[in-house]
Amino acid sequence: MPVNLNVPAAESLFPVAGLDMGYAMAHIRKPNRKDVLVVRIAEGSSVSGVFTTNRFCAAPVQVCQANLKVGKGIRALVVNTGCANAGTGERGLADARATTAKVAELLSVQPEQVLVFSTGVILENLPMDRLLPGIEQAVAGLGQANWLDAATSIMTTDTLPKASSRKLAVGSGEITITGVSKGAGMIRPNMATMLGYLATDATIAQPVLDRWTTAMADASFNRITIDGDTSTNDSFVVIATGQSKAVNIQTGQEPEAAQVFEALKAESIKLAQAIVRDGEGATKFITIQVEQAGTEEEALKVAYAIGHSPLVKTAFFASDPNLGRILAAVGYAGIDDLEQTRIQLYLGDVYVAQNGGRHPDYREEQGQAVMNDAEITVRVQLGRGSASTMVWTTDFSHEYVTINADYRS
Amino acid sequence: MPVNLNVPAAESLFPVAGLDMGYAMAHIRKPNRKDVLVVRIAEGSSVSGVFTTNRFCAAPVQVCQANLKVGKGIRALVVNTGCANAGTGERGLADARATTAKVAELLSVQPEQVLVFSTGVILENLPMDRLLPGIEQAVAGLGQANWLDAATSIMTTDTLPKASSRKLAVGSGEITITGVSKGAGMIRPNMATMLGYLATDATIAQPVLDRWTTAMADASFNRITIDGDTSTNDSFVVIATGQSKAVNIQTGQEPEAAQVFEALKAESIKLAQAIVRDGEGATKFITIQVEQAGTEEEALKVAYAIGHSPLVKTAFFASDPNLGRILAAVGYAGIDDLEQTRIQLYLGDVYVAQNGGRHPDYREEQGQAVMNDAEITVRVQLGRGSASTMVWTTDFSHEYVTINADYRS
Repeated sequence: MPVNLNVPAAESLFPVAGLDMGYAMAHIRKPNRKDVLVVRIAEGSSVSGVFTTNRFCAAPVQVCQANLKVGKGIRALVVNTGCANAGTGERGLADARATTAKVAELLSVQPEQVLVFSTGVILENLPMDRLLPGIEQAVAGLGQANWLDAATSIMTTDTLPKASSRKLAVGSGEITITGVSKGAGMIRPNMATMLGYLATDATIAQPVLDRWTTAMADASFNRITIDGDTSTNDSFVVIATGQSKAVNIQTGQEPEAAQVFEALKAESIKLAQAIVRDGEGATKFITIQVEQAGTEEEALKVAYAIGHSPLVKTAFFASDPNLGRILAAVGYAGIDDLEQTRIQLYLGDVYVAQNGGRHPDYREEQGQAVMNDAEITVRVQLGRGSASTMVWTTDFSHEYVTINADYRS
Repeated sequence: MPVNLNVPAAESLFPVAGLDMGYAMAHIRKPNRKDVLVVRIAEGSSVSGVFTTNRFCAAPVQVCQANLKVGKGIRALVVNTGCANAGTGERGLADARATTAKVAELLSVQPEQVLVFSTGVILENLPMDRLLPGIEQAVAGLGQANWLDAATSIMTTDTLPKASSRKLAVGSGEITITGVSKGAGMIRPNMATMLGYLATDATIAQPVLDRWTTAMADASFNRITIDGDTSTNDSFVVIATGQSKAVNIQTGQEPEAAQVFEALKAESIKLAQAIVRDGEGATKFITIQVEQAGTEEEALKVAYAIGHSPLVKTAFFASDPNLGRILAAVGYAGIDDLEQTRIQLYLGDVYVAQNGGRHPDYREEQGQAVMNDAEITVRVQLGRGSASTMVWTTDFSHEYVTINADYRS
């Protein structure tokens, strides 16, 4: 059961002018599920992407990075689930290129103008005999799919489709921002997650969109973790079609720029948090705030040490305020000159550890009361400086083990 | 159920001349279990220790390090379970010092000649009102406990006592080596694990024993991981009582030195592996060998990335050869210039991935056959150099979640 997350209503997801979508049931891995998505992008759109830093990055990630570098203007995305096309060597690259070539041929664009994404099992080859007909079917249906179909077409172990949408009154009119994401396991993005797509009809010049995309990923997809496993296929793509004439952002210094950026960032955070809320086996949504760090990197080390600790995560699953486990994680986070006597720990509003020891007024019942909530904030102060960060994660349940012991079967 | 590990027979654990042991049931946390151990060490013994690098290291660890530094010669160890005396601030330090003072008083030695160890729940104070009488009881029984009692007295979530013993014909006679260890969760030692004690009646000068202890820890306790959580209390102590006159090692260059060192190291490895075999919820014992690394540090990064990945560990639990997850872990291990096309992956003797892609001859049934075993070796070659390492770990099961969701209750 996802934590405070529901299937979005189709009508709540506003179309973004300049994009057409189509899907197919191609039986890539399992029958009768939407598993291929094609998105056609109007000419003149800006498209930016950030990708996994996993050195075993998948063939489609390598092709995406190469095609974005070519810079001919991206005109289409194609996504399949069921097979990640990772750990597939030269054949995987050839399959990814054949996929872009097929889409390009059908849409009369060039292969370098197509981005390709795969998600699913690693170390298996793409079933091209089923994928290519699936692409034909998806292209034939272009324009008939909506954003809810798109969100559904990219699901793997997700229990529900994830999407977010809003309109923003800005400049001389309004713009639309709509996005989808997927992912529930192998989640500790390190540039972006597998997969996030965010689109707007605002006009945003390519260099601005590139900068913003990185900043948005850092504030959203790069701040979540479920199991600490950085995927081979993480990708986050932002599209600005420029079909709305409400704003025209060319430098990022325009008066409306900050408003647009903040709105895009807020939607990115919602999409990233949706992945955590639907984390494999999740029963809790946990916010880890680390404050008074010497640097942001230091704050992140501590936040991830807490967020990845199986002992901390199983204690959250049990709603057990076994909070010493959090201090242990702080201690092994890799800050060599950390002074334990300067550490403060709060669970929600409860002051648990003062100067590295149990707070004299702390009572177990107080910790228990916070632990019983579905949404919990852990706050650690390091007493080293003024840097801070925030990371979102889940607990670790029996269901996580069940899902990942059975995922391929 | 531990993986290929049984309760040792009491008579298989040879006494080490120069040591007396006593235990108590002090009800530190739970009634009717041996939870306090006192070891008296004969004058003139060499004693070395290595301890956790967790910056939240427990009060007893801080006291041990200080007392070893004083260098008056260690004459006793005192160990309690049920409470780790970590995250306890100034009061924790005072309690640890009061514990050494009590033992010193009873044995007519100085407090600085006593090492103190605690294991159990973090962020709770030691119940001194029960611990001090327990120490009196243990000291009163000195000499009546055997090594199996000692191994039992230090257990927490362990399902069985862990001990190993051998005699070694060397020099002019023979020496005895006997040790005990404990631990099943919060195991990713980073100097040593919570807790390992190894003793011999050989004569080994203090500087040699110091060097050897570090080397032995690096080859044994520092090569195991269960959940990646480095404990606040990890301690590994080696005692050489010098009661056997078979060898007299003063420099480490003696002809018999290598033989004695290798025997001590082999026992350390057995004790460390016993912790993995009894890992919380373990159903598999997994050896991770990383070869052809540029440096040993690099090899360790990769080995631990595999050994800590919840996705790899749950696949092992399911006996599912979902081996792409191993490649993903290799990819995010933090080697920035890793070339995936140089990676080879073997599961047991099966060649799974060749040059970063699925080996053309690899068949799922082969991987499945290896996965069905209780002891499995993963071998990764990085194609970067000639450094290598080995790490031992477990799978990740429902039982792990159950144990850690219920540990305190």
